[in-house]
Amino acid sequence: MKSVTVFAPATVANVACGFDVFGFAVHEPGDVAKVTLHHQPGVEITTITGDGGLLPKSAAKNTAGFAAIRYLETIQANFGVDIELHKKMPLSSGLGSSAASAVAVLFAINALFDNQLTKAELLGIAMQSEKLACGAAHADNVAPALFGGFVLIRDSAENRAPDIVELPVPENLYCTIIHPKVEVRTADARNILSPNVPLKDAVRQWANTAALVAGLYRNDLALIGRALQDVVIEPQRAGLIPHFYEMKQAALDNSALGCSISGSGSSVFALSSSQATAAQVARAMSAVMNTHGIGNQVYVSLINTKGPEIIAREG
Amino acid sequence: MKSVTVFAPATVANVACGFDVFGFAVHEPGDVAKVTLHHQPGVEITTITGDGGLLPKSAAKNTAGFAAIRYLETIQANFGVDIELHKKMPLSSGLGSSAASAVAVLFAINALFDNQLTKAELLGIAMQSEKLACGAAHADNVAPALFGGFVLIRDSAENRAPDIVELPVPENLYCTIIHPKVEVRTADARNILSPNVPLKDAVRQWANTAALVAGLYRNDLALIGRALQDVVIEPQRAGLIPHFYEMKQAALDNSALGCSISGSGSSVFALSSSQATAAQVARAMSAVMNTHGIGNQVYVSLINTKGPEIIAREG
Repeated sequence: MKSVTVFAPATVANVACGFDVFGFAVHEPGDVAKVTLHHQPGVEITTITGDGGLLPKSAAKNTAGFAAIRYLETIQANFGVDIELHKKMPLSSGLGSSAASAVAVLFAINALFDNQLTKAELLGIAMQSEKLACGAAHADNVAPALFGGFVLIRDSAENRAPDIVELPVPENLYCTIIHPKVEVRTADARNILSPNVPLKDAVRQWANTAALVAGLYRNDLALIGRALQDVVIEPQRAGLIPHFYEMKQAALDNSALGCSISGSGSSVFALSSSQATAAQVARAMSAVMNTHGIGNQVYVSLINTKGPEIIAREG
Repeated sequence: MKSVTVFAPATVANVACGFDVFGFAVHEPGDVAKVTLHHQPGVEITTITGDGGLLPKSAAKNTAGFAAIRYLETIQANFGVDIELHKKMPLSSGLGSSAASAVAVLFAINALFDNQLTKAELLGIAMQSEKLACGAAHADNVAPALFGGFVLIRDSAENRAPDIVELPVPENLYCTIIHPKVEVRTADARNILSPNVPLKDAVRQWANTAALVAGLYRNDLALIGRALQDVVIEPQRAGLIPHFYEMKQAALDNSALGCSISGSGSSVFALSSSQATAAQVARAMSAVMNTHGIGNQVYVSLINTKGPEIIAREG
C-alpha cells in the first residue's frame, strides 16, 4: 500500500520574552512518522519506537493517532491508515514532542490524500491534539512545527482560527539546545506561575517582544540578543531546572546572543550568530551539567525554515 | 543675529498596546521655536504664544529653556540664545507638548551651532527636559518627535543611553487625533494604574506589540488593526475621558484600523488606511463630543516620518 514518511521538527516555544506567543523550529531533534494507507477505515498505531514504552498505542489516546482520526473525519475518508511513530527526541522535555508527532502524522496523511487540507486546516487539527496532550489548545509548538521558521501566535483563543504571523529568520541564526535528564511537567511549570505580573516587568517584556520582531526583520543580531530577555516567566521557572543560571551564564560567556528555557523546560536553548559559536555554547552548557553529574543531550542546528519534510514515499 | 526657526511635531505615545514603549509623530499639530544666537552667555525666553500664559518664562523652569541651557553646557558654548516659543498645540493634552517644544528648541540650537551634537545626544538632553516636565525621563514622546516616524523605545532606564528602534511606516497610514477640552494630568493618569497586570492580559499585550511591529514591516494594515488593542492600560484610563468608548466606537464604525488613548489623554487617536477615512473618522469622533457639548479640536495627518524641520533661517 501507499505510504509516506515525514520528519517534523522539535520546536522552541516562548523564546525568552514571548511566553505563549513565540516559537521556532529546529532541524534537530525531531520525530519521524510513516503513515500507510489501507482500505479499512480507522487508525491503527502499529509501532512506536524511542518512547521507552511511555506513549499510549491506542490511537484515540495518542496525540498523533488522534490527529489522524480527526483528519480522516474532516475529509470524510473511506480509507484508514496505519502509523509507525519514531520518537527521535526526549518526551516531556520542553521541545514540543507531542506537536512534532502530530504534525509529522498530519503532514504525511495529507500527502497521502492529495493535500486536501491547507496548512491552516492542519493547524486546527494539530491544536486539538495539543489539547489532548497538555490540556490546552496552544499553538506555540504546533504552529512552528508545521510552518517552520519563527512564528508569532498573536491570538489563539479556542473556537476561532488562530492569528499566526510568520516572521523572517536571519540566515546565520543557530540554535543550541541542551536537554538535561530532568523532567519538568508542563502542568507543574504552569501552576508555578503567578497569575499577576508587575506592570513594570510587563512593560519590559512587551518592549522585548516588539524588539525581537524588529530584530528579525532588520537582520540585526545584536538587537535580537538585547531582546532575548525574559523578566517575567524565567525567574519563576528557573528553579525547576537544576543549575539553570550556571548554564545560561556559560552560554552568554561563550558569546550566545541569548539563552532561556525552551517551552516549559527542562530543555534550555541559546541562539548564536554562527555554527562555531553555537557548538562552543553546546560544549560549555554540557560541561556545566557534566560537572554536576546530570546526564544531558545537546543539539546544534540552524533555525529550520522548512517545517515538516517528506523523507520517503512508497507505493 | 543668526536665527533658526524649527517646527517639531506632536506625538502619540503608547499607541494602544505599547504603553511606555511606542510612539509616533504627526504633521499636525506641533510647536514652533525661533532661536536666535547672541554674544552674551545664557538663555532667555523672550516670547511664548499659544500657552494661555501657563508656561514659565524662566528658562531654567521651562522645558524648552532647560533643554537650551543643557545644550549650551554640553558644547561649552561661549554664546547664549534667545527663544521665541509658539505653542501650536494644547498643553497637557496627551500629545507630547513639552517634548515638541524641547525638540524644536534643541533642533534649532543645534543648527545654529553647526550640528555639533548627534540626534542621540539631543535625545539625552530632551529626556532630561521631560524629567523636568513630568517627573520621569521618558522617551516615548521625545524620541518620535526627534526621529520622526514610528519608534520603539526598548529600554530607557535612567543613566544609560536609551535603546531606540526606528520602525518602518506604511505609506498610507493616516492618523486622526481628537483633543476634547478636558484636562487629564499625566500624574493622575499614572497613579490610577494598578501596579500589577493579570498574566493572561500581559500575554495578549506582548503578542500585540510584536504583531504591531510585524504589521509595520509587512505593510499589513489589517494586522496593524488587529494589533491595535490595549487590554491593560486603556480599560483603566478610559474613565478619565468622558465618552471615550463612544468616540472609539464611532472611529471603528467609520473604518478606523484602531483607536485608543494618545499618551495619558485626554486626546484620542485613530489610525486609518486613507486620508478620506481618517477625515471621516475625525468628523464622527467630533460629532460624538459635539453631541455631548464638549469642545474639541481634530487633526488629520499622515504619520510624520521627518521629525523636526527647519522652516526659516535668518542672518
